Amino acid sequence: MFEMISKCCDTKARCGILELPHGRVETPVFMPVGTVGAIKALTQEDMENLGTQILLGNTYHLFLRPGMEVIKHFGGLHNFIKWPHPILTDSGGFQIFSLSKLNKMKEEGAFFQSHIDGQRFCLTPELAVEIQEILGADIHMVLDQCIGYPAEQQAAEIAMERSLRWAKRCRVAKKKEHLNQFGIVQGGMYENLRQRSCEGLVDIGFEGYAIGGLSVGEPKGEMLAMIDVSCEKLPLEKPRYLMGVGTPLDIIEAVSRGIDMFDCVMPTRNGRNGTLFTSRGKVNIKNLKYRLDDSSLDSECPCYTCRTFSKAYLRHLFMSRELVSHRLLSLHNVTYYLGLLTKIRENIQNGTFKHLLEHHRKLWGSSES
Amino acid sequence: MFEMISKCCDTKARCGILELPHGRVETPVFMPVGTVGAIKALTQEDMENLGTQILLGNTYHLFLRPGMEVIKHFGGLHNFIKWPHPILTDSGGFQIFSLSKLNKMKEEGAFFQSHIDGQRFCLTPELAVEIQEILGADIHMVLDQCIGYPAEQQAAEIAMERSLRWAKRCRVAKKKEHLNQFGIVQGGMYENLRQRSCEGLVDIGFEGYAIGGLSVGEPKGEMLAMIDVSCEKLPLEKPRYLMGVGTPLDIIEAVSRGIDMFDCVMPTRNGRNGTLFTSRGKVNIKNLKYRLDDSSLDSECPCYTCRTFSKAYLRHLFMSRELVSHRLLSLHNVTYYLGLLTKIRENIQNGTFKHLLEHHRKLWGSSES
Repeated sequence: MFEMISKCCDTKARCGILELPHGRVETPVFMPVGTVGAIKALTQEDMENLGTQILLGNTYHLFLRPGMEVIKHFGGLHNFIKWPHPILTDSGGFQIFSLSKLNKMKEEGAFFQSHIDGQRFCLTPELAVEIQEILGADIHMVLDQCIGYPAEQQAAEIAMERSLRWAKRCRVAKKKEHLNQFGIVQGGMYENLRQRSCEGLVDIGFEGYAIGGLSVGEPKGEMLAMIDVSCEKLPLEKPRYLMGVGTPLDIIEAVSRGIDMFDCVMPTRNGRNGTLFTSRGKVNIKNLKYRLDDSSLDSECPCYTCRTFSKAYLRHLFMSRELVSHRLLSLHNVTYYLGLLTKIRENIQNGTFKHLLEHHRKLWGSSES
Repeated sequence: MFEMISKCCDTKARCGILELPHGRVETPVFMPVGTVGAIKALTQEDMENLGTQILLGNTYHLFLRPGMEVIKHFGGLHNFIKWPHPILTDSGGFQIFSLSKLNKMKEEGAFFQSHIDGQRFCLTPELAVEIQEILGADIHMVLDQCIGYPAEQQAAEIAMERSLRWAKRCRVAKKKEHLNQFGIVQGGMYENLRQRSCEGLVDIGFEGYAIGGLSVGEPKGEMLAMIDVSCEKLPLEKPRYLMGVGTPLDIIEAVSRGIDMFDCVMPTRNGRNGTLFTSRGKVNIKNLKYRLDDSSLDSECPCYTCRTFSKAYLRHLFMSRELVSHRLLSLHNVTYYLGLLTKIRENIQNGTFKHLLEHHRKLWGSSES
């Protein structure tokens, strides 16, 4: 289902095509996050107009609300949310770790209480696969056990080894042949654990591999080192997905290390908080200096927000807490992210990716930590 | 600036054309409310796509935020919010009455404190005109003194007589000849006061007349009686605007009594609260019975929401408090209101308005008080 079509000579960046049940996806690709079956403050029409190739849905959220009876009634997530293009769902492991009241992690599965109403559940690897096959996403993820940062090597090893056993159970539980299943590399910030995780997953064999447990508070250097060591061990001919990362600089750095797929709430969440990514760096729209600024947010951006409105008007909407500012600012940030990935693909194919990488290192070097 | 083009034989309903600096408006017309220069949860592009002819802006809100310096810098509200079509602004009197901490109503003007930061201001009739001429709306309103419901005749009379004196001062203060100024009929629920108010305003002479102080808690019968007595006294050849009203049934009843223009926050506010107006009556999208309902909100509605999504998905978004549900539900309700006014105009011109009125009396009779 993955075909590599172009490689960068200077870095490990590559372009490919994912052939999925609901369509083709050009990689490297960014997947906007549609938590409960909707991108926050944006519609499916918006996402189509922006050229979104694939959406991400959160199994944890969808399992709790609207629940599987509703999704089954509609024959899957695609029809329920009216998104005819590819979807990837995560397994729910990360949200159990970060959102729910986690009662106990056992070999059997994750025992947790809903963050909405306190109801108790046990998410086993088998249930995670069953739910995701009902959701019917083009790509679904194995259940893994996340750990915080920093973590002792022993704790990281226990979670990684259990994640491997769960990955195996997920592979066995997979029933729908036409859907794709990705394994998830864990192992904290320990090179040997990451290597062992990669080897174990490749032994099981998946349609693709994700790198989990990064961007959890570690220094950027450690994150990049873990990407390097994982990519070294993963098969070149399979897609690689870096979960939940990150800033524009994180993304282009990861692409240069051989990553093909990304998701992150950053464009929408930062948009709602008034932080915009532009071709000239970050803009904090709250800043008083924009009060009378009649220029657009980003003169190079083709989005409706930038084509139409001044920074002064956008600042006014934000300061007035107008609902539509969530939409206008998210629209811009998602456009920026999708545009960045388009540029990345073009530059890899044109042999100019290294220049693009250097440009972004300079652009973001000062404004990002 | 107003030309009547068609009259209903059975009722006092009429169709007309308003020729305004930023374009023509077909009446009867509904003006969506763009409080601080934005329709809540919708964009200007949405409003254009829905066929909105004229927007309403709130002087009180815009005066406080972004403030006149910003609006002046942009040469008026049209350019600041990028709406090239007609705009009507209110005078701020109603918001001072309903939102601010009103310190004192004096002959000079209304002394109040901002609801945002407590800053003190005095809005005089002259200042209300000056601000609105800076905003540059195609139609602006005189400053009036609102009263609550119920009100003693004496209190209603004092406020109405002061509103007349203020209307005169507003007319004298008007400088921009090409902009239109409307007087506002007051007088509580007293026929003789409403008549006296109309006569006083017509003596001063305005480009149009509004009926204020209705839909403030009175029974529907009293509201309709006050519309009747006012329309009786207002010149047939000038446009009549019923301020802040109301439900679909209120609107069509008022049209049948000779009203040409409406504004109301109901379609957007009710949309955000999950109450939808449809061709079959009201829908409360929270209702459990929609949990598995794969039908659209309104099969007769051409809006994106109805064309695309099921009630079950809309309910899910609403229950999950997803931001985009504000947009999707507001989009539908505004479409319903604008569509209702289009139907009203068509039926007046075709001589079938009475049937439409009867249909709506039956449709809403049961679901509205």
